[in-house]
Amino acid sequence: MTKLYSIAIVGATGAVGEKIMDQLEKRNFPISHIKFLASKRSAGKAIEFKGQSYVIEEATPEAFDGVDIALFSAGGSVSKTLAPEAASRGAVVIDNTSAFRMDENVPLVVPEVNRQDLKTHKGIIANPNCSTIQMVVALEPIRQAYGLDQVIVSTYQAVSGAGSVAIKELEEQSKSFGETLNVKAEVLPVKSAENHYPIAFNVIPQIDVFEENGFTYEEMKMINETKKIMHMQDLAVSATCVRLPIVSGHSESVFIQIEKDGITADDIRKLLTQSEGIQILDDPANQIYPMPLYAEGKDEVFIGRIRQDLSNKKGFHMWIVSDNLLKGAALNSIQIAEAMIEDGIL
Amino acid sequence: MTKLYSIAIVGATGAVGEKIMDQLEKRNFPISHIKFLASKRSAGKAIEFKGQSYVIEEATPEAFDGVDIALFSAGGSVSKTLAPEAASRGAVVIDNTSAFRMDENVPLVVPEVNRQDLKTHKGIIANPNCSTIQMVVALEPIRQAYGLDQVIVSTYQAVSGAGSVAIKELEEQSKSFGETLNVKAEVLPVKSAENHYPIAFNVIPQIDVFEENGFTYEEMKMINETKKIMHMQDLAVSATCVRLPIVSGHSESVFIQIEKDGITADDIRKLLTQSEGIQILDDPANQIYPMPLYAEGKDEVFIGRIRQDLSNKKGFHMWIVSDNLLKGAALNSIQIAEAMIEDGIL
Repeated sequence: MTKLYSIAIVGATGAVGEKIMDQLEKRNFPISHIKFLASKRSAGKAIEFKGQSYVIEEATPEAFDGVDIALFSAGGSVSKTLAPEAASRGAVVIDNTSAFRMDENVPLVVPEVNRQDLKTHKGIIANPNCSTIQMVVALEPIRQAYGLDQVIVSTYQAVSGAGSVAIKELEEQSKSFGETLNVKAEVLPVKSAENHYPIAFNVIPQIDVFEENGFTYEEMKMINETKKIMHMQDLAVSATCVRLPIVSGHSESVFIQIEKDGITADDIRKLLTQSEGIQILDDPANQIYPMPLYAEGKDEVFIGRIRQDLSNKKGFHMWIVSDNLLKGAALNSIQIAEAMIEDGIL
Repeated sequence: MTKLYSIAIVGATGAVGEKIMDQLEKRNFPISHIKFLASKRSAGKAIEFKGQSYVIEEATPEAFDGVDIALFSAGGSVSKTLAPEAASRGAVVIDNTSAFRMDENVPLVVPEVNRQDLKTHKGIIANPNCSTIQMVVALEPIRQAYGLDQVIVSTYQAVSGAGSVAIKELEEQSKSFGETLNVKAEVLPVKSAENHYPIAFNVIPQIDVFEENGFTYEEMKMINETKKIMHMQDLAVSATCVRLPIVSGHSESVFIQIEKDGITADDIRKLLTQSEGIQILDDPANQIYPMPLYAEGKDEVFIGRIRQDLSNKKGFHMWIVSDNLLKGAALNSIQIAEAMIEDGIL
């Protein structure tokens, strides 16, 4: 008989929370009991799951008593306060925020890449940043087969990464064709920041706040998380993260330099075709390449435009697209839980 | 007394042609006589310039008799046929298409970069590709001061680069929020190609047709034109060119590696502040960086997000934005003519 698990979802009404519920249902996750936790303000409201209505409870420390798996996606400050409480009560926390990602006691996991790190958990497991996840799924098979020296990525990120309010803002502003400079902007690039700019018919080279070194926090997340997940502290990684007027799906233009000589784009294409979680869409003659509009709702990391650099035989370019709310967030969280069950950790 | 010039405009009704007329008027170009040339089909139609109405004439070889400067932006095939005819009749042709850009007898010119090449012209001068122009304006001062080893660029390009029909397509499709997969797509990525994809709320990693090597023609234009304009046949340049759902303004995420040691992002910022045609918008603490929506209608190449690579002290990242129809096309064409007049070539 399959073991069933008691689940708590913190942040169920957010963009990622909704996808987590979808995934639990779609993947038929073995649930014995489920509860929905939120701030005092939202407690008491009703929420539907698998056709049944639930009352949202207040997310107190005690609410995690008896919970096996707690899925957090309610913002970093909520995770910082409550994730240790949940863990101390015996729950395994899978946290979708950046609160614990760089904590050396917390495994940061993409199952296709570093599933073995789950074994070292101490109650909290961090789900990486969306743009990091889809990139490392592509990079890890290449690292294993050919070695990896350098990564330079420029991202093309959807507004859904900034939550449902950002989707709403794009929808409203998109009616402003030709007059977008006059629209109201209150959410992007960063809700809490001083300046907001229109995103419709615009491109904003800022995701999250700026660090002292001139990189944004989103860029530093990609750089640091990639090194941690791939266990390559010396890997040269650089990122430029950019927000676009699209609803869903992150795209990445990635340059890599491998260690091994004599590898062709075809070799990489064949390698990735056989790799877990990846679908290759790479047939330029027939205009086949990944696009975010077509990745929405799909589980895979889509890769195309794989080509050798023209002046560096160890250099390759590729175009990586995935649904940022699925593999980039909700799906990866559930896959972490599934891997722990399969590996007998949970 | 200022010398006045007889001008012919071929392709006046296109997206670039209209901007060429704007620029001639705005910059008070010294015109003695102007004529508008088009295919037989468009001949006879009226067109307005400086508040006066003109009748469009058929673009026959003889129509260029007596013309000093012929500005072409009616597509490569028109230029291939008629530009040599115009040149043989004594006109200086400034061609906005890709027809002659890589012809070794044709200078490919961005005045801030290689104005001296104008002296070698044999009747035809090529205006570079839009995405190339704004990048070399930024790169040339850096090359001169610090040397340049490598360039890796990922572009974020507006639909106006694909003409007025593409702008119309984006406008129509933008009404489809949430249902974009069902819209009609007839123009992008390449009008003459077999497959068309929605551009609204989507990202298309194809601009122009694919070459045998897996790069698109747009990417090869950036690579080859950059080398030609900067007189650096050995420069390592790579490009990934991507079309976005924005009307106007191309953005570029550019990684460069310079030759000189000990240079900081501040050095590059100061250097570019003093360079021709550039405006630095680079104050992360105050969220100041270039964005395409704010570049529309402006002459400058805007540069920001200048920062040193975290693992390569000779590596720098920057974000370059310009109005693709102005500095990327019409404005650069007129600046070529102005430079020739100033330098006594015309």
